[in-house]
Formats: sequence, C-alpha cells, structure tokens
Amino acid sequence: MVKHALPVTREADFAQWYQAVIAEADMAEESGVRGSMVMRPWGYGIWERMQRLLDDRIKALGYDNCYFPLFIPLSYFEREADHVEGFAKEMAVVTHHRLVSDGKGGLIPDPEAKLEEPLVVRPTSETVIGAAFSRWIQSWRDLPVQINQWANVVRWEMRTRMFLRTTEFLWQEGHAAYATEEQARTQTRRALELYRSFAEDCAAIPVIAGEKPEHERFPGAVETWSIEAMMQDGKALQAGTSHFLGTTFSAAQNIRYQNEEGTFVPAQTISWGMSTRMIGGLIMTHGDDDGLRVPPRLAPWQIVIVPMLRDNHEDASILHYCRDIQQALLQESVFGEPVRLLVDTRPAKSATKRWGWLKKGAPLVLEVGGRDVAGGNVSMIRRDRLYREDGKLDSAIISRDDFLGQATELLEAIQQALYDEAKAKRDANIRRDVTEFAELEKFFAEDARYPGWVEVQWARPTGAELDQVVERLKALKLTARNVPAVCDPVDGTCIFTGKPAVERILIARAY
Amino acid sequence: MVKHALPVTREADFAQWYQAVIAEADMAEESGVRGSMVMRPWGYGIWERMQRLLDDRIKALGYDNCYFPLFIPLSYFEREADHVEGFAKEMAVVTHHRLVSDGKGGLIPDPEAKLEEPLVVRPTSETVIGAAFSRWIQSWRDLPVQINQWANVVRWEMRTRMFLRTTEFLWQEGHAAYATEEQARTQTRRALELYRSFAEDCAAIPVIAGEKPEHERFPGAVETWSIEAMMQDGKALQAGTSHFLGTTFSAAQNIRYQNEEGTFVPAQTISWGMSTRMIGGLIMTHGDDDGLRVPPRLAPWQIVIVPMLRDNHEDASILHYCRDIQQALLQESVFGEPVRLLVDTRPAKSATKRWGWLKKGAPLVLEVGGRDVAGGNVSMIRRDRLYREDGKLDSAIISRDDFLGQATELLEAIQQALYDEAKAKRDANIRRDVTEFAELEKFFAEDARYPGWVEVQWARPTGAELDQVVERLKALKLTARNVPAVCDPVDGTCIFTGKPAVERILIARAY
Repeated sequence: MVKHALPVTREADFAQWYQAVIAEADMAEESGVRGSMVMRPWGYGIWERMQRLLDDRIKALGYDNCYFPLFIPLSYFEREADHVEGFAKEMAVVTHHRLVSDGKGGLIPDPEAKLEEPLVVRPTSETVIGAAFSRWIQSWRDLPVQINQWANVVRWEMRTRMFLRTTEFLWQEGHAAYATEEQARTQTRRALELYRSFAEDCAAIPVIAGEKPEHERFPGAVETWSIEAMMQDGKALQAGTSHFLGTTFSAAQNIRYQNEEGTFVPAQTISWGMSTRMIGGLIMTHGDDDGLRVPPRLAPWQIVIVPMLRDNHEDASILHYCRDIQQALLQESVFGEPVRLLVDTRPAKSATKRWGWLKKGAPLVLEVGGRDVAGGNVSMIRRDRLYREDGKLDSAIISRDDFLGQATELLEAIQQALYDEAKAKRDANIRRDVTEFAELEKFFAEDARYPGWVEVQWARPTGAELDQVVERLKALKLTARNVPAVCDPVDGTCIFTGKPAVERILIARAY
Repeated sequence: MVKHALPVTREADFAQWYQAVIAEADMAEESGVRGSMVMRPWGYGIWERMQRLLDDRIKALGYDNCYFPLFIPLSYFEREADHVEGFAKEMAVVTHHRLVSDGKGGLIPDPEAKLEEPLVVRPTSETVIGAAFSRWIQSWRDLPVQINQWANVVRWEMRTRMFLRTTEFLWQEGHAAYATEEQARTQTRRALELYRSFAEDCAAIPVIAGEKPEHERFPGAVETWSIEAMMQDGKALQAGTSHFLGTTFSAAQNIRYQNEEGTFVPAQTISWGMSTRMIGGLIMTHGDDDGLRVPPRLAPWQIVIVPMLRDNHEDASILHYCRDIQQALLQESVFGEPVRLLVDTRPAKSATKRWGWLKKGAPLVLEVGGRDVAGGNVSMIRRDRLYREDGKLDSAIISRDDFLGQATELLEAIQQALYDEAKAKRDANIRRDVTEFAELEKFFAEDARYPGWVEVQWARPTGAELDQVVERLKALKLTARNVPAVCDPVDGTCIFTGKPAVERILIARAY
C-alpha cells in the first residue's frame, strides 16, 4: 500500500480531495472576502503561463489587446435587459463614492456621496465594448475589429468554490465585429479551435468541441460553442465558450457600418472567453492522490533541483554542482521557450522541499546530495510516474550527463504522457451505445460517483418539447453539454422524443 | 514653417496638446463611464510592454506574482483608519449584489440584496495583503515574503485626466515583509532603483530619485521615496513610489514572526507601485507637435513598413519585397528581444497610414513603392528626427541592404537619442542657485509656462514650521518634490527658515 501525500484520496471524497490539492500545492486560499480567493504564487504562476500561451495565440489570430472600464453604468444594462431574455441580475453594485465615520469608531458609506446613477462591476463587457465598437465602426473599411481584454469580472454567486466558481475571477474576453454573418460564424469557430488547441496542446486536457443546445446559449447569442473536458469524477467542465451574437448586440448598441454600396447595415459580432476556471479543470484532470501534476508547458518551474544541504563543508560543492546543471539547461529550449529551472535553496529539510514540489506537481524534481556529486549523478523523480511497481517512490539515479542530454525530451514526454493518460480515461468513459432513456437513467443511477458521459442521438427539440427534455435530465442531475463538432452521423431515433434523430449530443453531470 | 500633424502645439496649449496626442495616436478615449477611459491597442500595447519589462525586473528581485481580491470588507479600513492619519476616504463602495426591475422599465439595486457589510473596491491592497501576510508569516524561516500584484485599483477622483488621474487605473503593487528594519529600508531603496532604471533605460525618461518630505509620505509610511520626472511644460510628475512602512501595518494586522531566539516580533513591511500614469509621463516627456514618440524598448511595433499599394500589377512584388525585409528582421534581436516589425496592409492611402504611424510614434517608418523595389531601396523616416533643416519631412532613400545591416543599431540610437534629448532639456531647467525665497517667488512668477524646477537647501522643518512652508509653497502653486538621493552637499541656510540647511530639496509645480 502506497502512503500518499494528500490527507484524502480522490476515491474517498473527490470534493475534499480537490480542496486538499489547492491547499497542499499552495495554489490559493480563502481570502476572508466572501467568494473571493487569494491566488498564491504557484496558482497564479500557472495562470500567468496560461495567459502567455493564450495571448500569443490570440494575437496570432489578429486580435489587439485593449482595456475597458471595470464599472458599467446601470443604464447600459437596462438597454441590454430589454433585448436579452435570461439577463442575469446577480451583480455587484457600487452606490457610494466615499466612506465617513459613523461617530462610533466605525465607517459607513457617506449618505452625501450617493451616486446619481449606480455603477455595476462588470460581469462581462459586451455592453461597454459594444458602445466602443459603435464609435469605432463607421465604414466597411473599419472592419473587422478584433479586440481582446484580460480582466477581472464579478458575478455574485451563491455557492462558490475555488477556481471553479468565485465571485471575482480573472479571464480573457475576445470581442469582434465583422461585415458578414458568414465571417462572424467562421471566426466564432476559429476562437473555439484556439481554445481546443490550447486545452489539448498546452494544458494536456482532452476536450470535445461542439455547439451548445439552444437552452444553454449565452443570453442574446445565436450560437454558443464550448469545449467540454471530463474531470476524474466523470463530471463535465465547460472550459471555454465562443458565441456568435449575430446582430443582437449591434442592433441594441447601434454598431453599424456603411457598406461599399453606401447602405448602413448592422455589424455581426462575436465574443469568447476563458477564465481561471481552467485551473480547476487542470487540477481535476491531472491531479492525483499526491497533489497536482502540472503539464510542463504550464509549469512555472519545469525542473526543480533540491540540493541536499547539511550545513557542512560539502554544501558548497553540492550547490556549485546544482548551479552547473542550471547553467547548462538555461541554454536549452523546450516547446519553443527557454527551460524554466529552479534551484531551491530555501532553509528547510530536503525531504520537506522534495514533497512540497511533488505536491505542487513540478514535472521533474532532482535531488542532489554529496554522493550524487561524487558519482557525477542526480536523483530524478518524474512527477507523472511517482511510484515503482513495488509502491516505493521512483527516484532514479542517473548520470548528470545523461540527464542533461535528455531533459527537454523528458519534459516533452511528460507533456504527452499526461495528455495520453487523460484522453484514455476520458475515452473509456464516454458511452455511445445508449439508445433508450431508461438505459440512460440506469447508467447514471448505477454509480453515485458519476461514471462518465453518454453521447445520445436526439431530434434537437425546441420550445415546450425542449423544456421537457431539460426537466427530465434535471431530475437525474444531468445536463446536455454540447453537440460534438466531430462525431458519427446519426442513424437512429431521438432518445427523448422517439422522432428521427438529427444530431448527437453529450449528456453528463457537470460543474 | 513646418506644418505639424497635431491640431495644437505644446507652445500654444500644453493641456490641449496632451489630449490631442492621446486622441491622434489612438491611445485612449473617454469611455462614457465617469473618470474611466478605454485604453485602445496602441496605448494598451505600450502598457503591455511596460508590464513585460517591469515584470522581468520584479521577478529578478525575487518577487512572486499573486492575485488578491478586488473587494475589501469595510471593517479592514476601520482597522487602518485607527492607525493611519490622513486615511483617504474617496472610494467606490459596493452595497448591493443584485439588480431588479423598478416596475417602470428601468433597473435599480435590489433593496432585498443589500450587503450586510459594504465592500470597498481596492484603492490599494495593503490591508488585504497584510491579512495574508499575517497568515503566511509565523517564523523567521518564512521571511522574507516578497509579493507583487498586477491589478486595477479605484480612487474616486474629482478631476480626472486620461492616464494621469483616472478613477480606475492599472498598476503593479509590490509588497514585502522582512525580519529587520535595515533589510526593509534597503529593499525599499532597491525597489526605487528598479523604478529609476526602468524609467531611464526602458522609458528613456530621466528621473530624480529621492525621499519625499514628511508631509508627502504615504499615510502610515516611515519613509516614502519617489522618482520625479520633468515634463516638457516644466512640471514634475511623480512616476513611481516606494514606501518603508516600518511596523505600522504589521502592528495593525498582527504580522509577526518568531525569531531564532523564540521571541515574537512584528515584521517590517514595504510597498511600492507604478501605474498607467507612467504613460502620461511618456507622452509629456517624448511627445512633440506631430504626436507621440515611443522609445523603441516600449514600442509595440518598433518598425512599421507601409507598402505603397496602388491596386495594380506592381502590388504583389511590393508586398513580396516588404515581407522579405520582415523575414530578415524577424531573425534579429535588439535590447535582448526579437525585433517587432509590422507590415501595414490595411486598405487605406499610404500617406494616411504613414502619418498615422508617425503620430503614434513608431520609431522607424519605412515606405516601399515600386521605385524602391526596382532600385533595391527603402524610404526611411526616423521618428526622432522628423524634419530636415529646410522644414521638409526627412524621408531618406537608402538601400535595403544598408537598412537591414543597421536596423537594430538605429533602434538603439533612437532609444539613446530620446533619453539624451529629455535629459538635456531637464538638466537645463533645474536651477540650483536660488538661495532666497523672494528669488524663488520671482523665478516661478516670471513665466506662466512653468520654467522648471528649483533645488533649494532647507533645514527639514517639522510640525507647525513645516505647515508654514507648505502653505507658502501652495500659495505659489508649488510643492516640495523630493530630496535627491544624489546631490551636492549643503553649504548654506534654509531658504524657508534661515536656519542652517541639512539637505537639498526639489521645488516644482506638479501633476
């Protein structure tokens, strides 16, 4: 029996395990502010890596970064509320601009400093960016406009969970306007493809890209697309969305252009976003009972060297030996970027440091003691293969030169291994042979620990018929995730209505 | 007479000119939200460059990036208000978490959704980061803790001005805790030195680093240091500050550690910040009557090539020629980073595009027409030397190969030239020979356009004596900026009190 590093296993209690990973890997903590967390260096460092890699891809799509106001006047939402059914109202509202003493040693919002018009803390920026688009876009020559923003947004959530659902979260939001519907639809899919490739190639998270069913669309959207990832408890996590908004927002906000014939026509807009929620997905995809495992492309440190110092005369030569390895590897690149390597010289026991980095999920952890120096070796642990078959920690002594020769290949191999492992797990847990609703019911009833997803055929019902489907799924705590963009053709009947099927859709429990 | 690109010159109206640069260089615009601006791609792109260069330096100092909540509970400020005199109260206060219909087609904050404790939108994060420090720091082994945050902050300003003073602005705030006072004081100065070198080496803005006088300290600080830059109207701009906070915040927030002897002692904390205000400083240092001039290290695009397309058969070969130059330069590095070069293929007249980039201040603008292709040349404009002596635009035809051979050196030369020009202007406008207050009065009365700064000797008065000095300066619209860290020794008497001088201090009008 292996004794694992976390106080709770995935098997025993997945939700508790999730919190344990965040705590033990020093990723984030409760802040004392309702529903908001403090992102600590390791958690925020992963976000910075995500930002860098996403940002490069977003710029390569031809988008420019901008920054729009945090506060949105209430009236902007009145405009939107008129046009958009399902308009969400849980938002933080600023009503005062000064604090004064309450005369009892405390502070209160100054009644004299009440705002004439309350300001809403942005839950997303369609309204304020739409207002800018209406200023910027006059002629067909001004199109396309493609803008991205990195920002914090606030949605007043009743039940919060670190990374997955927090009152304040960090994200990027892409917003673009095009001349034609066809362009806008194509670009909505290009943004989705950007998310798919980022998730799979960088985060090593296999996802299914597809279109959300009608009732799961972003309010005001004509089409909403998502990437869905399977967590290790079998639940789905929506990890990124891309919306074709048609003229919903451009009509409401007067975003129109004069075409080459001189006619004024509304622009076609899209928006798309990915957030710190992705870090929750990373934990629940790659974490194990010893903590997080970070794919090398996202790891703030890809290789950590722990010098085994003992406060004696050997220490200097051990440190020197470690710095030598560091120097050699700083010259090397992997995934098109310089290798990120840390020599951890903090004053703590080396076993504590080793386990600290293993719980954080640094891909490669090296230990270097006096014997390693003497033999020209290093002791290496691959985080993706922590234990030998006999249950002992797999710390391999290899020659320093061999290690230097293969370090970048090892990082590539770990990136691939994490993806392959997650994909195999995911693929083994999607059933595609369920054709009767009773069977679906049975499948999800069988195992309280959520056995995975089911891809069923359906007739894409609408209206009251769709409402009924949603209700039947809700009774089983299930939701329709998306209609995979890539899947087999239909050949049967709708599992809900018995009518001829028109497409396949994924059914799952979800975060 | 040169006809300049901006509708107003610095000479005619400096404040109007400042707004004109921002508008004509497409840097930012009013957002429709009180005191908040929209940062457009060129303005935000400069901020991204500042972020990248500052962030590298901050990490090299050993700081880790984190993220703390936007909202701070009111009670945190009550704690601070007790301890900190001069506590600023102009802050945005969130009091409700939902909007509801007012029954008349509008929306109002839902009276049912009033927060029990109002939340303040962070004006700075000392309180919430201090609370985290008190959790993180237990033992001397936990020190130092060095944290940086990139964030938006909000201060309710009555009069706002783009970049210089906006209700919401972007910044980085460094926060650190040390075991000893000496360490903390040293690190406060290291942060200041980081700002000095960033301002001078990256932004090409010469600054004077020094300590703020007592009455200009950050509330609660034991020492406040700043870098001060001279704008082209002679006013001073505080471009970055670094505070030694002593135990003010650690006492209020219980940030204490057990030292090696087992005694609990309060940690010594520091904080330091630089913001988007720096962009205002960039404009007022390097801008001219044709727009902005961006130092190459901060330019989102260092070289812009405008192909002179005419919708005819030559276009393909012109584009090909431009792409060739692009390919060749993409291999090259300058200032330790790859060259940033754009080929501007937008559908607009080449003269419009040329002047667009000159107003934005791209360091090198190339134009390539059919004749250039035939001759193997490019037409090159250096933004820092826009006109020939005869007042004509200085567009030099040089061979493509010569250009490729010297492009990176040219960028280095432009970076240096902008710095040298600003430094010469600044140095020529600091007077150090003023020894009588009447002389000071006369100097600043002489020219309504603010002739520059005066460095005077003073006795560092305190209490009522200092109040009097501040009042006398205020009457002349002057402020004491800082006591330069590097300056001549004192040899006279205090210009305000007549007592023996103890240090030199800069007096100026300021933003």
